[in-house]
Amino acid sequence: MEAGKRINVVTKILAANDRVADENRRRFAELGLKVVNLISSPGAGKTALLEATIGRIRKDRRVGVIVGDIATTKDAERIAKHDVPVVQITTESFGGSCHLEASTIRQALDEIPLKELDLLFVENVGNLVCPAEFDLGEQAKVSMLSVTEGEDKPLKYPLAFQVANLVILSKVDLVPHLRVDMEALRANVRQMNPKVRTLELSSQTGEGFDAWIEWLKKP
Amino acid sequence: MEAGKRINVVTKILAANDRVADENRRRFAELGLKVVNLISSPGAGKTALLEATIGRIRKDRRVGVIVGDIATTKDAERIAKHDVPVVQITTESFGGSCHLEASTIRQALDEIPLKELDLLFVENVGNLVCPAEFDLGEQAKVSMLSVTEGEDKPLKYPLAFQVANLVILSKVDLVPHLRVDMEALRANVRQMNPKVRTLELSSQTGEGFDAWIEWLKKP
Repeated sequence: MEAGKRINVVTKILAANDRVADENRRRFAELGLKVVNLISSPGAGKTALLEATIGRIRKDRRVGVIVGDIATTKDAERIAKHDVPVVQITTESFGGSCHLEASTIRQALDEIPLKELDLLFVENVGNLVCPAEFDLGEQAKVSMLSVTEGEDKPLKYPLAFQVANLVILSKVDLVPHLRVDMEALRANVRQMNPKVRTLELSSQTGEGFDAWIEWLKKP
Repeated sequence: MEAGKRINVVTKILAANDRVADENRRRFAELGLKVVNLISSPGAGKTALLEATIGRIRKDRRVGVIVGDIATTKDAERIAKHDVPVVQITTESFGGSCHLEASTIRQALDEIPLKELDLLFVENVGNLVCPAEFDLGEQAKVSMLSVTEGEDKPLKYPLAFQVANLVILSKVDLVPHLRVDMEALRANVRQMNPKVRTLELSSQTGEGFDAWIEWLKKP
C-alpha cells in the first residue's frame, strides 16, 4: 500500500476514535466520574500501582478499574482480589491490538456500575508507543516509567510524555542497584513536557504515595 | 471505519511487508550474512546487550547494526563508539511507527557496507507487541525480556515469544533485589514456545555471555 493512502487510513481511524472519545468524556462529566488512563511499557508496575492505591484511597473514593491486555485475565484477577469492580479487555479478539481505543472503553462501560463510582482507572496495554495516540475520553493521562528502563526513555518515546498530565517514575526502591542517572531522567521528562508534574514512587515501599493519593483526590 | 474494512487494510500491509521481507532474505542469503532481529520492551537492555556483545565477537565476526527508534540517534551513537558500521532509523519520519518494517530495512541496507559484514543486528523499536508481527527477512528473531518486567509477561505478550528463535532473559544481576519468580518465568516462556531456547544473562556482569556468543556463531 502506498504511504499516502496508508496515512489517510490512520487519520480516519484516529478521527473516528476522537468522536467516540468525546462521547465518553461527556458521559464521564455527567456522572462526575474522574477517569485516569495509565500508560507504560510492559512491566513498569501499573497493576502493582493500582493494587497499592486501592487500599489507600477506598475510604474516600469508590474505585473501579478497566484493564487492557493482549491476552490473559491475570491483571483483572489481581485487582478483583481487592474487591472493586473490574473489567478485563483482552485485545486478542481485536487482532491483538497494542492499545485501547475509545470504542473498546465504551463497550466496557456497560459492564461496570458507573453510577456507583467516583474514580475509574483504565490500565492500558503495556506499550509506551501506541496507547499515547488514542484519546479514550479520560480526564487525565498518567504516563509511567520504571527507573529500570533508563534515563533516555522520555527522549526516545516522546509522545507518551508530551500527552501526559502526570508522569510517574516507578520502582524507585531499585535505584541503588541500577546505573540510572536520575538527574538526567528528570531533565529528560522536563525537556519533553516542561509543565508536567513528576512523582517518584515505589509500590513496594509506599514511598511517594502520599503525593499520588493527593493528586488523585483533586477534582 | 468498520472492523472488516480495517482488518483488510492490516492484512494488505502485512502481505506487502512479507514480499519485501522475502527479497531481503534472498539478499542476506546471497551475501552469507546472518541477520538477527532484537525485540523487547523499552529499556530491557537491547543496546547494552549489543555493546557488550560487539567486543566479545568482533575478532571472529564482522558486525554491523541497524537501530530503530521513534526519536533520537542516542542508541546509534552508543554503538558507533565501538567502531562498527551502524545506521539509525528514526520512525518519527514514518508517522512515529512503533516497529520496523521490511521496506525500512531495505532502505537502511543501502547505508551499510553489507559485503564487509558477517553478522547484522537489527535493534527494533522498544515495543513487545508490534515488532513481533513484521518479518524483516532476518534469519532469527531474538525476543528479550528484562527480569524486572515480571514473570507473567510471556503470557501477556504471547506473539513476541511464539515467533522467537531465541529468548533472552536480561538483567539477571537484579534478581536478588526483585520479587520475580524465575521458575514461573521460565515455565511461562515454555508454555508460549515449548521448543525455544532461553538464555539468562547480564550485560553488566557478563553472566550468560559465553552461551550467547556461541549461539551467534552458529551458521
